[in-house]
Amino acid sequence: MKATAPPAAEAQSPRTRQRLLEAAGEIFAERGFREATVREIVKRAGANIASVNYHFGDKERFYSAVVAYAHGCAVEKYPSDPGLGKEAAPADRLRAFVHSFLSRILDEGRPAWHGKLMSREMADPTRALDRLVEESIRPQYLHLASIVRALLGRRATEERVRLCALSIVGQCLFYHHARAVVTRLHPQVKYGPAAVGRLADHIASFSLAALRGSAKGAGP
Amino acid sequence: MKATAPPAAEAQSPRTRQRLLEAAGEIFAERGFREATVREIVKRAGANIASVNYHFGDKERFYSAVVAYAHGCAVEKYPSDPGLGKEAAPADRLRAFVHSFLSRILDEGRPAWHGKLMSREMADPTRALDRLVEESIRPQYLHLASIVRALLGRRATEERVRLCALSIVGQCLFYHHARAVVTRLHPQVKYGPAAVGRLADHIASFSLAALRGSAKGAGP
Repeated sequence: MKATAPPAAEAQSPRTRQRLLEAAGEIFAERGFREATVREIVKRAGANIASVNYHFGDKERFYSAVVAYAHGCAVEKYPSDPGLGKEAAPADRLRAFVHSFLSRILDEGRPAWHGKLMSREMADPTRALDRLVEESIRPQYLHLASIVRALLGRRATEERVRLCALSIVGQCLFYHHARAVVTRLHPQVKYGPAAVGRLADHIASFSLAALRGSAKGAGP
Repeated sequence: MKATAPPAAEAQSPRTRQRLLEAAGEIFAERGFREATVREIVKRAGANIASVNYHFGDKERFYSAVVAYAHGCAVEKYPSDPGLGKEAAPADRLRAFVHSFLSRILDEGRPAWHGKLMSREMADPTRALDRLVEESIRPQYLHLASIVRALLGRRATEERVRLCALSIVGQCLFYHHARAVVTRLHPQVKYGPAAVGRLADHIASFSLAALRGSAKGAGP
C-alpha cells in the first residue's frame, strides 16, 4: 500500500514539507481539524501519506505543526520589539508592541488562511492550542506584561498588570474578531497598512493614558 | 406531502414557534447556517416543515429570526442602561454599559448556544448579520458613543469617539472571543458573575482614565 511504502527522496524534501504545511493550512482553515482529512491535504499538496508520516507523524501532530508554522511566520514578519532594546522607554516599547501585534493579526497574507484557522481554534480548541499558548503566546504575553509593569510602577499587583495587558490585547484583537461587524457598522473604517498605523496609534495612546491614570491611583 | 400540507393549529401556536427557535439555535450553532438542515431542526423541535413556513418563511428568514431572537433575549436580560436615565453622570452610565455588556456576552445561559452562533456569524457572516447590525448592534453602539462623547467633550471628532467606543467594546468582547486562550494563559481567571463584576470595574476604570487623558489632550 502507498501509505506504508518508504517515502521517496522527494517526499522527504523540505520543499514537500513546505507544500504540505501550506495545503494543510488551507484545508484545516476551510473545514476545521476534525472534518479535514490527511488524504485531501496530500492530494492538494501533490504528495503522499508517507510524506506526512515522515515529516509530522499523525494528524494531530501535523495540525499542531501547521498552527505553530502560521504563528512563526507572523511573528517573524512582525517581531514584538522591532529594533527596540530593553533600554528603550516603556511608552515606546508599548507603541512598538501594539503596532507590531496589530499588523500581525490584520495582515491578510500571513499566510492568508492563518486568521480563519485561529478563529476556528478559538471557537473549538484542540490540543494544538495548549502547545501554541506555551510556546508562542505566553512569551509574547510576558513581554507585554513587562512593559505594562514598567508603566504602572512597582506597586501594581500581578492582577492589575494582567488586567491592563489584556485590555491592550483585547483592543487589538477586536479588529480581527469583530471585523464583520466593524465593516458593517462603519464602512469608512479601512484595514490597509496606513489604517493599521492609525489604529495602533490610537490603541497605544488610549492605553498609555489609561495606565498613567491607573499609576496615579485613578483606578478603583 | 407533509411539507405542503396546511399547518395544523398546533404548528401555528406560539409554543411551536418557541420550540423551533430553540432547536434551530442549537443546530445552527453546531453546524452553521449552510450545513444545518430545516429537516433536522423540525425533527428536534417535534414540529413539521409547514410550521417553519408558517412562522418564518424560508431557511434564511428562519435563521435571521433565530439570530435576532438570541440577541433580543440577551438585551432583555441585560439592558444597556439598567435603571439609569440620560441625566445620570456619564461615568456612571459608562460603568453601567460595560457591566451590562460584559454580563450579556459572558452569560452562558442566554441561551447557551448564542455565543457559538455569534462566533460562527463573525467568522463566516450571512445576511442575518446585516439585519442584526442595523436592528440591534447599531442602536447599542450609538448609546455607547453618546456616553463617550459626553466624556470626551464637544471638541472630540467623530473618528475619536468611534475609536474610543470600539476600544471599550473590544476590551469586553475579548473575554468571549479569546476565552480559550485566556483560560490557558491564566487558569486563575474566573468567568462567574462575581468575576464579571471585577472585570467590568477594571474595564470601566481603565477606559475612564483613558478618556480623561484624551480629553485633556494626552492623545496624539
